[in-house]
Amino acid sequence: MPVSDSETTREALLTLSPFDRHLGVELLHCDAQLVTARVSVKPELTQPIGIVHGGVYAAIAEGVASLGANHGVAADGMLALGQSNNCAFLRPVANGAVHARAHVRHRGGTTQVWDVELTDDDGRLCATSRVTIAVRPQRPAVR
Amino acid sequence: MPVSDSETTREALLTLSPFDRHLGVELLHCDAQLVTARVSVKPELTQPIGIVHGGVYAAIAEGVASLGANHGVAADGMLALGQSNNCAFLRPVANGAVHARAHVRHRGGTTQVWDVELTDDDGRLCATSRVTIAVRPQRPAVR
Amino acid sequence: MPVSDSETTREALLTLSPFDRHLGVELLHCDAQLVTARVSVKPELTQPIGIVHGGVYAAIAEGVASLGANHGVAADGMLALGQSNNCAFLRPVANGAVHARAHVRHRGGTTQVWDVELTDDDGRLCATSRVTIAVRPQRPAVR
Amino acid sequence: MPVSDSETTREALLTLSPFDRHLGVELLHCDAQLVTARVSVKPELTQPIGIVHGGVYAAIAEGVASLGANHGVAADGMLALGQSNNCAFLRPVANGAVHARAHVRHRGGTTQVWDVELTDDDGRLCATSRVTIAVRPQRPAVR
Repeated sequence: MPVSDSETTREALLTLSPFDRHLGVELLHCDAQLVTARVSVKPELTQPIGIVHGGVYAAIAEGVASLGANHGVAADGMLALGQSNNCAFLRPVANGAVHARAHVRHRGGTTQVWDVELTDDDGRLCATSRVTIAVRPQRPAVR
Repeated sequence: MPVSDSETTREALLTLSPFDRHLGVELLHCDAQLVTARVSVKPELTQPIGIVHGGVYAAIAEGVASLGANHGVAADGMLALGQSNNCAFLRPVANGAVHARAHVRHRGGTTQVWDVELTDDDGRLCATSRVTIAVRPQRPAVR
Repeated sequence: MPVSDSETTREALLTLSPFDRHLGVELLHCDAQLVTARVSVKPELTQPIGIVHGGVYAAIAEGVASLGANHGVAADGMLALGQSNNCAFLRPVANGAVHARAHVRHRGGTTQVWDVELTDDDGRLCATSRVTIAVRPQRPAVR
Repeated sequence: MPVSDSETTREALLTLSPFDRHLGVELLHCDAQLVTARVSVKPELTQPIGIVHGGVYAAIAEGVASLGANHGVAADGMLALGQSNNCAFLRPVANGAVHARAHVRHRGGTTQVWDVELTDDDGRLCATSRVTIAVRPQRPAVR
Protein backbone atom coordinates (compact mmCIF):
# COMPACT_ATOMS: atom_id res chain seq x y z
CA MET A 1 0.00 0.00 0.00
CA PRO A 2 1.56 3.29 -1.00
CA VAL A 3 2.38 5.85 1.63
CA SER A 4 0.29 8.99 1.15
CA ASP A 5 1.86 12.17 -0.17
CA SER A 6 1.36 13.96 3.12
CA GLU A 7 3.13 11.22 5.07
CA THR A 8 5.98 11.28 2.58
CA THR A 9 6.24 15.04 2.95
CA ARG A 10 6.16 14.91 6.72
CA GLU A 11 8.87 12.29 6.82
CA ALA A 12 10.99 14.23 4.33
CA LEU A 13 10.70 17.36 6.47
CA LEU A 14 12.22 15.54 9.44
CA THR A 15 15.37 14.24 7.73
CA LEU A 16 18.34 15.81 6.00
CA SER A 17 17.43 17.18 2.58
CA PRO A 18 19.10 16.15 -0.69
CA PHE A 19 21.22 19.33 -0.70
CA ASP A 20 22.26 18.88 2.94
CA ARG A 21 23.44 15.37 2.04
CA HIS A 22 25.18 16.69 -1.09
CA LEU A 23 27.22 18.95 1.21
CA GLY A 24 28.01 16.05 3.51
CA VAL A 25 26.09 17.28 6.55
CA GLU A 26 26.19 14.74 9.41
CA LEU A 27 23.40 15.30 11.89
CA LEU A 28 24.43 14.92 15.55
CA HIS A 29 21.37 16.14 17.43
CA CYS A 30 17.99 17.47 16.35
CA ASP A 31 14.95 18.71 18.21
CA ALA A 32 12.65 21.72 18.01
CA GLN A 33 15.03 23.91 20.06
CA LEU A 34 18.52 22.75 19.11
CA VAL A 35 20.26 21.15 16.15
CA THR A 36 23.93 20.23 15.98
CA ALA A 37 25.74 18.91 12.92
CA ARG A 38 29.16 18.57 11.35
CA VAL A 39 30.55 18.85 7.81
CA SER A 40 34.04 17.62 6.93
CA VAL A 41 36.06 20.06 4.84
CA LYS A 42 36.59 18.67 1.34
CA PRO A 43 38.18 20.29 -1.73
CA GLU A 44 34.79 20.68 -3.44
CA LEU A 45 33.56 22.88 -0.58
CA THR A 46 36.30 25.47 -0.94
CA GLN A 47 36.72 28.80 -2.70
CA PRO A 48 39.81 29.86 -4.70
CA ILE A 49 42.33 30.18 -1.86
CA GLY A 50 41.52 26.84 -0.33
CA ILE A 51 39.24 27.87 2.52
CA VAL A 52 35.61 26.88 3.03
CA HIS A 53 33.32 28.83 0.64
CA GLY A 54 31.01 31.32 2.34
CA GLY A 55 28.04 29.68 0.68
CA VAL A 56 28.79 26.47 2.53
CA TYR A 57 28.30 28.13 5.93
CA ALA A 58 25.08 29.76 4.74
CA ALA A 59 23.84 26.46 3.34
CA ILE A 60 24.64 24.47 6.48
CA ALA A 61 22.91 27.11 8.62
CA GLU A 62 19.84 27.10 6.36
CA GLY A 63 19.64 23.33 6.44
CA VAL A 64 19.96 22.78 10.17
CA ALA A 65 17.68 25.68 11.15
CA SER A 66 14.98 24.49 8.74
CA LEU A 67 15.27 20.96 10.06
CA GLY A 68 14.90 22.05 13.68
CA ALA A 69 11.98 24.31 12.79
CA ASN A 70 10.22 21.46 11.01
CA HIS A 71 10.72 19.27 14.08
CA GLY A 72 8.70 21.85 16.00
CA VAL A 73 5.81 22.22 13.55
CA ALA A 74 5.50 19.12 11.32
CA ALA A 75 3.34 17.21 13.80
CA ASP A 76 0.80 20.06 13.57
CA GLY A 77 0.55 19.75 9.80
CA MET A 78 2.75 22.79 9.28
CA LEU A 79 5.81 23.31 7.13
CA ALA A 80 8.88 25.45 7.92
CA LEU A 81 10.39 27.32 4.97
CA GLY A 82 13.45 29.57 5.05
CA GLN A 83 12.55 33.22 4.54
CA SER A 84 15.94 34.87 5.02
CA ASN A 85 19.48 33.91 5.95
CA ASN A 86 21.95 36.49 7.24
CA CYS A 87 25.41 35.03 7.46
CA ALA A 88 28.64 36.71 8.62
CA PHE A 89 32.05 35.16 7.91
CA LEU A 90 34.54 35.73 10.73
CA ARG A 91 37.46 33.32 10.44
CA PRO A 92 38.59 31.01 7.63
CA VAL A 93 38.53 27.22 7.93
CA ALA A 94 40.85 25.22 5.66
CA ASN A 95 40.72 21.74 7.13
CA GLY A 96 39.08 19.50 9.71
CA ALA A 97 35.35 20.07 10.00
CA VAL A 98 32.80 22.83 10.30
CA HIS A 99 30.62 22.32 13.39
CA ALA A 100 27.14 23.83 13.42
CA ARG A 101 25.01 24.58 16.49
CA ALA A 102 21.58 26.04 15.79
CA HIS A 103 19.21 27.13 18.52
CA VAL A 104 15.80 28.73 18.22
CA ARG A 105 15.54 32.32 19.43
CA HIS A 106 11.90 33.01 18.67
CA ARG A 107 8.98 30.64 18.05
CA GLY A 108 5.93 32.56 16.88
CA GLY A 109 2.91 31.10 15.13
CA THR A 110 4.02 32.16 11.65
CA THR A 111 7.73 32.91 12.12
CA GLN A 112 10.71 31.35 13.85
CA VAL A 113 14.17 32.86 14.23
CA TRP A 114 17.21 30.61 14.64
CA ASP A 115 20.78 31.56 15.50
CA VAL A 116 23.43 29.29 14.05
CA GLU A 117 27.06 29.24 15.18
CA LEU A 118 29.65 27.64 12.93
CA THR A 119 32.91 26.73 14.62
CA ASP A 120 36.16 24.97 13.70
CA ASP A 121 37.76 21.92 15.34
CA ASP A 122 39.20 24.18 18.06
CA GLY A 123 35.80 25.62 18.91
CA ARG A 124 36.54 29.05 17.45
CA LEU A 125 33.59 30.92 15.96
CA CYS A 126 34.11 31.03 12.17
CA ALA A 127 30.70 32.15 10.93
CA THR A 128 27.37 33.05 12.43
CA SER A 129 23.98 33.03 10.77
CA ARG A 130 20.49 34.18 11.65
CA VAL A 131 17.87 32.23 9.76
CA THR A 132 14.26 33.44 9.67
CA ILE A 133 11.73 30.72 8.98
CA ALA A 134 8.16 31.09 7.77
CA VAL A 135 5.66 28.54 9.11
CA ARG A 136 2.94 27.58 6.63
CA PRO A 137 0.36 24.77 6.19
CA GLN A 138 1.86 21.60 4.66
CA ARG A 139 1.12 20.64 1.08
CA PRO A 140 2.35 17.60 -0.84
CA ALA A 141 5.86 17.77 -2.24
CA VAL A 142 6.51 19.33 -5.64
CA ARG A 143 7.25 16.67 -8.21
CA MET B 1 59.39 26.00 -14.58
CA PRO B 2 56.70 26.01 -11.94
CA VAL B 3 54.21 28.82 -11.83
CA SER B 4 54.65 30.87 -8.68
CA ASP B 5 52.15 30.67 -5.86
CA SER B 6 51.03 34.23 -6.40
CA GLU B 7 50.30 33.64 -10.09
CA THR B 8 48.39 30.49 -9.21
CA THR B 9 46.39 32.38 -6.62
CA ARG B 10 45.62 35.24 -8.98
CA GLU B 11 44.43 32.88 -11.68
CA ALA B 12 42.32 30.92 -9.20
CA LEU B 13 40.67 34.14 -8.04
CA LEU B 14 39.48 34.87 -11.56
CA THR B 15 37.75 31.56 -12.28
CA LEU B 16 34.87 29.65 -10.73
CA SER B 17 35.86 28.07 -7.42
CA PRO B 18 35.62 24.34 -6.64
CA PHE B 19 32.38 24.84 -4.70
CA ASP B 20 30.84 26.94 -7.48
CA ARG B 21 31.60 24.09 -9.90
CA HIS B 22 30.24 21.54 -7.41
CA LEU B 23 26.92 23.43 -7.55
CA GLY B 24 27.01 23.49 -11.34
CA VAL B 25 27.40 27.25 -11.76
CA GLU B 26 27.77 28.22 -15.44
CA LEU B 27 29.35 31.62 -15.86
CA LEU B 28 27.78 33.78 -18.59
CA HIS B 29 29.43 37.16 -18.05
CA CYS B 30 31.99 38.47 -15.58
CA ASP B 31 33.61 41.82 -15.05
CA ALA B 32 34.29 44.10 -12.09
CA GLN B 33 30.77 45.61 -12.21
CA LEU B 34 28.51 42.79 -13.33
CA VAL B 35 28.42 39.00 -13.19
CA THR B 36 25.72 36.79 -14.64
CA ALA B 37 25.47 33.03 -14.25
CA ARG B 38 23.04 30.14 -14.37
CA VAL B 39 22.55 26.94 -12.36
CA SER B 40 20.30 24.13 -13.58
CA VAL B 41 17.96 22.76 -10.94
CA LYS B 42 18.93 19.20 -10.04
CA PRO B 43 17.56 16.88 -7.34
CA GLU B 44 20.70 17.26 -5.21
CA LEU B 45 20.12 21.03 -4.95
CA THR B 46 16.67 20.73 -3.39
CA GLN B 47 15.23 20.72 0.11
CA PRO B 48 12.58 18.30 1.39
CA ILE B 49 9.57 19.49 -0.64
CA GLY B 50 11.43 19.49 -3.95
CA ILE B 51 12.24 23.17 -4.32
CA VAL B 52 15.70 24.73 -4.53
CA HIS B 53 17.36 24.83 -1.07
CA GLY B 54 17.85 28.32 0.35
CA GLY B 55 21.53 27.62 0.80
CA VAL B 56 21.88 27.21 -2.95
CA TYR B 57 20.76 30.79 -3.60
CA ALA B 58 23.10 32.08 -0.89
CA ALA B 59 25.98 30.04 -2.29
CA ILE B 60 25.44 31.17 -5.88
CA ALA B 61 25.25 34.79 -4.73
CA GLU B 62 28.42 34.45 -2.67
CA GLY B 63 30.28 32.86 -5.56
CA VAL B 64 29.38 35.31 -8.29
CA ALA B 65 29.81 38.41 -6.12
CA SER B 66 33.23 37.24 -4.95
CA LEU B 67 34.25 36.49 -8.52
CA GLY B 68 33.23 39.92 -9.75
CA ALA B 69 34.94 41.60 -6.81
CA ASN B 70 38.16 39.71 -7.52
CA HIS B 71 38.00 40.83 -11.15
CA GLY B 72 38.12 44.38 -9.84
CA VAL B 73 41.02 43.99 -7.42
CA ALA B 74 43.21 40.99 -8.37
CA ALA B 75 45.35 42.98 -10.81
CA ASP B 76 46.30 45.26 -7.91
CA GLY B 77 47.54 42.33 -5.82
CA MET B 78 44.41 42.38 -3.70
CA LEU B 79 42.04 39.58 -2.73
CA ALA B 80 38.26 39.81 -2.28
CA LEU B 81 36.79 37.73 0.55
CA GLY B 82 33.14 37.45 1.52
CA GLN B 83 32.39 39.15 4.83
CA SER B 84 28.62 38.75 5.00
CA ASN B 85 25.77 37.44 2.88
CA ASN B 86 22.18 38.51 3.51
CA CYS B 87 19.80 36.45 1.45
CA ALA B 88 15.99 36.67 1.28
CA PHE B 89 13.90 33.88 -0.29
CA LEU B 90 10.84 35.18 -2.12
CA ARG B 91 9.47 32.55 -4.48
CA PRO B 92 10.21 28.83 -4.83
CA VAL B 93 11.88 27.32 -7.89
CA ALA B 94 11.30 23.63 -8.60
CA ASN B 95 12.62 23.18 -12.11
CA GLY B 96 14.45 24.86 -14.99
CA ALA B 97 17.35 27.01 -13.87
CA VAL B 98 18.23 29.66 -11.33
CA HIS B 99 19.61 32.77 -13.06
CA ALA B 100 21.94 35.05 -11.12
CA ARG B 101 22.69 38.70 -11.86
CA ALA B 102 25.17 40.39 -9.53
CA HIS B 103 26.07 44.04 -9.77
CA VAL B 104 28.37 46.08 -7.58
CA ARG B 105 26.69 48.78 -5.49
CA HIS B 106 29.72 50.17 -3.65
CA ARG B 107 33.43 49.90 -4.42
CA GLY B 108 35.49 51.25 -1.53
CA GLY B 109 39.16 50.60 -0.87
CA THR B 110 38.55 47.93 1.76
CA THR B 111 34.90 46.98 1.18
CA GLN B 112 32.62 46.24 -1.75
CA VAL B 113 28.87 45.67 -1.64
CA TRP B 114 27.16 43.57 -4.31
CA ASP B 115 23.45 43.07 -4.94
CA VAL B 116 22.52 39.73 -6.43
CA GLU B 117 19.15 38.93 -7.99
CA LEU B 118 18.16 35.31 -8.48
CA THR B 119 15.36 34.72 -10.96
CA ASP B 120 13.57 31.74 -12.52
CA ASP B 121 13.18 30.88 -16.21
CA ASP B 122 10.29 33.34 -16.45
CA GLY B 123 12.37 36.20 -15.06
CA ARG B 124 10.53 36.33 -11.74
CA LEU B 125 12.59 37.38 -8.72
CA CYS B 126 12.98 34.30 -6.49
CA ALA B 127 15.71 35.39 -4.09
CA THR B 128 17.83 38.46 -3.51
CA SER B 129 21.15 38.69 -1.73
CA ARG B 130 23.44 41.46 -0.57
CA VAL B 131 27.03 40.30 -0.31
CA THR B 132 29.61 42.41 1.52
CA ILE B 133 33.17 41.76 0.42
CA ALA B 134 36.37 42.61 2.30
CA VAL B 135 39.36 43.58 0.12
CA ARG B 136 42.72 42.49 1.53
CA PRO B 137 46.30 42.03 0.24
CA GLN B 138 46.79 38.71 -1.59
CA ARG B 139 48.69 35.87 0.02
CA PRO B 140 49.45 32.44 -1.41
CA ALA B 141 46.68 29.85 -1.25
CA VAL B 142 46.20 27.74 1.86
CA ARG B 143 47.40 24.20 1.24
CA MET C 1 -19.40 62.14 16.01
CA PRO C 2 -16.11 60.45 16.67
CA VAL C 3 -14.15 58.88 13.83
CA SER C 4 -14.02 55.10 14.21
CA ASP C 5 -10.88 53.37 15.36
CA SER C 6 -10.37 51.65 12.04
CA GLU C 7 -10.57 54.91 10.11
CA THR C 8 -8.12 56.50 12.51
CA THR C 9 -5.76 53.59 12.08
CA ARG C 10 -6.01 53.63 8.30
CA GLU C 11 -5.29 57.33 8.15
CA ALA C 12 -2.36 56.98 10.56
CA LEU C 13 -0.87 54.23 8.38
CA LEU C 14 -0.76 56.57 5.40
CA THR C 15 1.11 59.46 7.03
CA LEU C 16 4.51 59.87 8.64
CA SER C 17 4.65 58.25 12.07
CA PRO C 18 5.54 60.09 15.29
CA PHE C 19 9.09 58.70 15.22
CA ASP C 20 9.57 59.64 11.56
CA ARG C 21 8.57 63.20 12.47
CA HIS C 22 10.84 63.13 15.53
CA LEU C 23 13.73 62.43 13.14
CA GLY C 24 12.66 65.26 10.85
CA VAL C 25 11.69 63.10 7.85
CA GLU C 26 10.23 65.22 5.02
CA LEU C 27 8.19 63.15 2.61
CA LEU C 28 8.69 64.03 -1.06
CA HIS C 29 6.83 61.25 -2.85
CA CYS C 30 4.87 58.23 -1.68
CA ASP C 31 3.02 55.47 -3.48
CA ALA C 32 2.88 51.68 -3.25
CA GLN C 33 6.01 51.25 -5.40
CA LEU C 34 8.25 54.18 -4.53
CA VAL C 35 8.84 56.51 -1.61
CA THR C 36 11.33 59.38 -1.54
CA ALA C 37 12.14 61.53 1.48
CA ARG C 38 14.81 63.78 2.95
CA VAL C 39 16.21 64.37 6.43
CA SER C 40 18.39 67.38 7.24
CA VAL C 41 21.51 66.54 9.23
CA LYS C 42 21.25 68.02 12.73
CA PRO C 43 23.58 67.63 15.73
CA GLU C 44 21.07 65.39 17.54
CA LEU C 45 21.23 62.85 14.69
CA THR C 46 24.99 62.29 14.95
CA GLN C 47 27.27 59.82 16.67
CA PRO C 48 30.46 60.74 18.55
CA ILE C 49 32.64 61.90 15.64
CA GLY C 50 30.00 64.17 14.16
CA ILE C 51 28.64 61.99 11.35
CA VAL C 52 25.10 60.72 10.97
CA HIS C 53 24.42 57.83 13.41
CA GLY C 54 23.88 54.45 11.75
CA GLY C 55 20.57 54.09 13.53
CA VAL C 56 19.30 57.15 11.69
CA TYR C 57 19.74 55.48 8.29
CA ALA C 58 18.06 52.31 9.55
CA ALA C 59 15.20 54.32 11.03
CA ILE C 60 14.63 56.38 7.88
CA ALA C 61 14.65 53.21 5.78
CA GLU C 62 12.21 51.48 8.11
CA GLY C 63 9.87 54.46 8.09
CA VAL C 64 9.71 55.05 4.36
CA ALA C 65 9.48 51.38 3.42
CA SER C 66 6.64 50.83 5.92
CA LEU C 67 4.83 53.87 4.63
CA GLY C 68 5.05 52.73 1.03
CA ALA C 69 3.96 49.22 1.97
CA ASN C 70 0.94 50.56 3.83
CA HIS C 71 -0.01 52.61 0.77
CA GLY C 72 -0.22 49.33 -1.11
CA VAL C 73 -2.30 47.39 1.40
CA ALA C 74 -4.26 49.77 3.69
CA ALA C 75 -7.21 50.06 1.30
CA ASP C 76 -7.65 46.29 1.56
CA GLY C 77 -7.91 46.44 5.34
CA MET C 78 -4.36 45.19 5.76
CA LEU C 79 -1.49 46.54 7.81
CA ALA C 80 2.22 46.53 6.92
CA LEU C 81 4.63 45.89 9.80
CA GLY C 82 8.42 45.80 9.60
CA GLN C 83 9.79 42.30 10.08
CA SER C 84 13.50 42.89 9.49
CA ASN C 85 15.83 45.69 8.46
CA ASN C 86 19.27 44.97 7.07
CA CYS C 87 21.27 48.15 6.76
CA ALA C 88 24.86 48.62 5.49
CA PHE C 89 26.77 51.85 6.10
CA LEU C 90 29.05 52.79 3.22
CA ARG C 91 30.08 56.44 3.44
CA PRO C 92 29.76 59.01 6.24
CA VAL C 93 27.53 62.08 5.99
CA ALA C 94 28.35 65.05 8.21
CA ASN C 95 26.21 67.84 6.79
CA GLY C 96 23.51 68.71 4.28
CA ALA C 97 20.77 66.12 4.10
CA VAL C 98 20.25 62.37 3.84
CA HIS C 99 18.09 61.53 0.83
CA ALA C 100 16.09 58.30 0.88
CA ARG C 101 14.70 56.43 -2.11
CA ALA C 102 12.74 53.27 -1.35
CA HIS C 103 11.34 50.99 -4.00
CA VAL C 104 9.46 47.74 -3.62
CA ARG C 105 11.27 44.63 -4.87
CA HIS C 106 8.70 41.99 -4.01
CA ARG C 107 4.98 42.27 -3.28
CA GLY C 108 3.62 38.96 -2.03
CA GLY C 109 0.36 38.43 -0.18
CA THR C 110 1.98 38.24 3.25
CA THR C 111 5.43 39.73 2.67
CA GLN C 112 6.93 42.70 0.87
CA VAL C 113 10.62 43.44 0.36
CA TRP C 114 11.81 47.02 -0.11
CA ASP C 115 15.25 48.28 -1.08
CA VAL C 116 16.17 51.67 0.30
CA GLU C 117 19.09 53.77 -0.93
CA LEU C 118 20.36 56.59 1.25
CA THR C 119 22.45 59.20 -0.52
CA ASP C 120 24.12 62.51 0.33
CA ASP C 121 23.63 65.91 -1.34
CA ASP C 122 26.03 64.86 -4.12
CA GLY C 123 24.05 61.72 -4.90
CA ARG C 124 26.66 59.35 -3.50
CA LEU C 125 25.36 56.13 -1.94
CA CYS C 126 25.97 56.37 1.84
CA ALA C 127 23.86 53.53 3.16
CA THR C 128 21.60 50.86 1.76
CA SER C 129 18.87 48.94 3.52
CA ARG C 130 16.63 46.01 2.73
CA VAL C 131 13.42 46.11 4.72
CA THR C 132 11.16 43.06 4.90
CA ILE C 133 7.55 43.86 5.70
CA ALA C 134 4.87 41.51 7.02
CA VAL C 135 1.32 42.16 5.78
CA ARG C 136 -1.38 41.38 8.35
CA PRO C 137 -5.08 42.22 8.89
CA GLN C 138 -5.60 45.67 10.43
CA ARG C 139 -6.65 46.03 14.05
CA PRO C 140 -7.34 49.21 15.97
CA ALA C 141 -4.31 51.10 17.26
CA VAL C 142 -2.78 50.19 20.62
CA ARG C 143 -3.66 52.79 23.25
CA MET D 1 44.23 75.11 28.33
CA PRO D 2 42.13 73.54 25.61
CA VAL D 3 41.75 69.80 25.43
CA SER D 4 43.27 68.42 22.23
CA ASP D 5 41.10 67.15 19.42
CA SER D 6 42.23 63.60 19.94
CA GLU D 7 41.37 63.68 23.64
CA THR D 8 37.98 65.15 22.83
CA THR D 9 37.36 62.45 20.27
CA ARG D 10 38.42 59.68 22.61
CA GLU D 11 36.18 60.94 25.37
CA ALA D 12 33.26 61.33 22.99
CA LEU D 13 33.72 57.74 21.81
CA LEU D 14 33.27 56.48 25.36
CA THR D 15 29.99 58.22 26.17
CA LEU D 16 26.49 58.15 24.72
CA SER D 17 26.28 59.97 21.40
CA PRO D 18 23.94 62.88 20.67
CA PHE D 19 21.52 60.60 18.83
CA ASP D 20 21.54 58.02 21.62
CA ARG D 21 20.60 60.80 24.04
CA HIS D 22 17.96 62.10 21.62
CA LEU D 23 16.34 58.65 21.85
CA GLY D 24 16.54 58.68 25.62
CA VAL D 25 19.03 55.83 25.99
CA GLU D 26 20.00 55.28 29.66
CA LEU D 27 23.26 53.38 29.99
CA LEU D 28 23.28 50.74 32.73
CA HIS D 29 26.56 48.92 32.13
CA CYS D 30 29.34 49.29 29.56
CA ASP D 31 32.58 47.48 28.94
CA ALA D 32 34.34 45.97 25.94
CA GLN D 33 32.32 42.72 26.14
CA LEU D 34 28.88 43.75 27.38
CA VAL D 35 26.65 46.80 27.27
CA THR D 36 23.20 47.07 28.84
CA ALA D 37 20.85 50.00 28.50
CA ARG D 38 17.18 50.99 28.71
CA VAL D 39 14.91 53.31 26.75
CA SER D 40 11.48 54.33 28.07
CA VAL D 41 8.70 54.09 25.50
CA LYS D 42 7.44 57.57 24.62
CA PRO D 43 4.89 58.65 21.98
CA GLU D 44 7.64 60.12 19.76
CA LEU D 45 9.32 56.69 19.48
CA THR D 46 6.26 54.96 18.03
CA GLN D 47 4.96 54.11 14.58
CA PRO D 48 1.35 54.57 13.40
CA ILE D 49 -0.35 51.89 15.51
CA GLY D 50 1.26 52.98 18.75
CA ILE D 51 4.05 50.42 19.07
CA VAL D 52 7.79 51.14 19.15
CA HIS D 53 9.10 51.98 15.64
CA GLY D 54 11.45 49.37 14.17
CA GLY D 55 14.06 52.06 13.61
CA VAL D 56 14.23 52.63 17.36
CA TYR D 57 15.38 49.06 17.99
CA ALA D 58 17.95 49.32 15.21
CA ALA D 59 19.18 52.65 16.54
CA ILE D 60 19.49 51.45 20.13
CA ALA D 61 21.37 48.35 18.95
CA GLU D 62 23.71 50.44 16.80
CA GLY D 63 24.42 52.83 19.65
CA VAL D 64 25.16 50.32 22.38
CA ALA D 65 27.22 48.01 20.16
CA SER D 66 29.33 50.93 18.92
CA LEU D 67 29.84 52.16 22.45
CA GLY D 68 31.00 48.77 23.68
CA ALA D 69 33.28 48.35 20.68
CA ASN D 70 34.85 51.74 21.31
CA HIS D 71 35.48 50.77 24.92
CA GLY D 72 37.56 47.90 23.58
CA VAL D 73 39.64 49.86 21.09
CA ALA D 74 39.74 53.58 22.00
CA ALA D 75 42.71 53.20 24.35
CA ASP D 76 44.70 51.84 21.38
CA GLY D 77 44.00 54.93 19.30
CA MET D 78 41.38 53.11 17.27
CA LEU D 79 37.82 54.02 16.41
CA ALA D 80 34.82 51.68 16.06
CA LEU D 81 32.35 52.53 13.29
CA GLY D 82 29.17 50.64 12.45
CA GLN D 83 29.43 48.79 9.13
CA SER D 84 26.11 46.96 9.08
CA ASN D 85 23.10 46.43 11.30
CA ASN D 86 20.74 43.49 10.77
CA CYS D 87 17.68 43.82 12.93
CA ALA D 88 14.68 41.47 13.21
CA PHE D 89 11.45 42.57 14.86
CA LEU D 90 9.73 39.78 16.77
CA ARG D 91 7.16 41.17 19.21
CA PRO D 92 5.64 44.64 19.57
CA VAL D 93 6.25 46.85 22.60
CA ALA D 94 3.69 49.56 23.36
CA ASN D 95 4.60 50.71 26.86
CA GLY D 96 7.15 50.39 29.66
CA ALA D 97 10.72 50.28 28.42
CA VAL D 98 12.90 48.59 25.82
CA HIS D 99 15.84 46.86 27.48
CA ALA D 100 19.02 46.29 25.44
CA ARG D 101 21.74 43.75 26.11
CA ALA D 102 24.67 43.77 23.70
CA HIS D 103 27.51 41.29 23.87
CA VAL D 104 30.49 40.93 21.59
CA ARG D 105 30.60 37.74 19.51
CA HIS D 106 33.80 38.32 17.58
CA ARG D 107 36.72 40.65 18.24
CA GLY D 108 39.08 40.72 15.28
CA GLY D 109 41.70 43.35 14.51
CA THR D 110 39.58 45.15 11.93
CA THR D 111 36.08 43.86 12.63
CA GLN D 112 33.87 43.18 15.63
CA VAL D 113 30.48 41.49 15.64
CA TRP D 114 27.96 42.25 18.40
CA ASP D 115 24.65 40.55 19.13
CA VAL D 116 22.03 42.77 20.69
CA GLU D 117 18.85 41.49 22.36
CA LEU D 118 16.00 43.90 22.91
CA THR D 119 13.43 42.81 25.48
CA ASP D 120 10.31 44.23 27.11
CA ASP D 121 9.60 44.75 30.84
CA ASP D 122 8.65 41.06 31.13
CA GLY D 123 11.95 39.90 29.66
CA ARG D 124 10.42 38.72 26.36
CA LEU D 125 12.62 39.01 23.28
CA CYS D 126 11.11 41.75 21.07
CA ALA D 127 13.90 42.39 18.59
CA THR D 128 17.36 41.10 17.90
CA SER D 129 20.17 42.78 16.03
CA ARG D 130 23.60 41.81 14.77
CA VAL D 131 25.85 44.82 14.43
CA THR D 132 29.13 44.56 12.50
CA ILE D 133 31.71 47.14 13.50
CA ALA D 134 34.75 48.27 11.52
CA VAL D 135 37.82 49.19 13.59
CA ARG D 136 39.90 52.01 12.10
CA PRO D 137 42.61 54.44 13.29
CA GLN D 138 41.17 57.45 15.14
CA ARG D 139 41.07 60.84 13.49
CA PRO D 140 39.79 64.11 14.93
CA ALA D 141 36.03 64.64 14.90
CA VAL D 142 34.32 66.04 11.82
CA ARG D 143 33.28 69.65 12.38
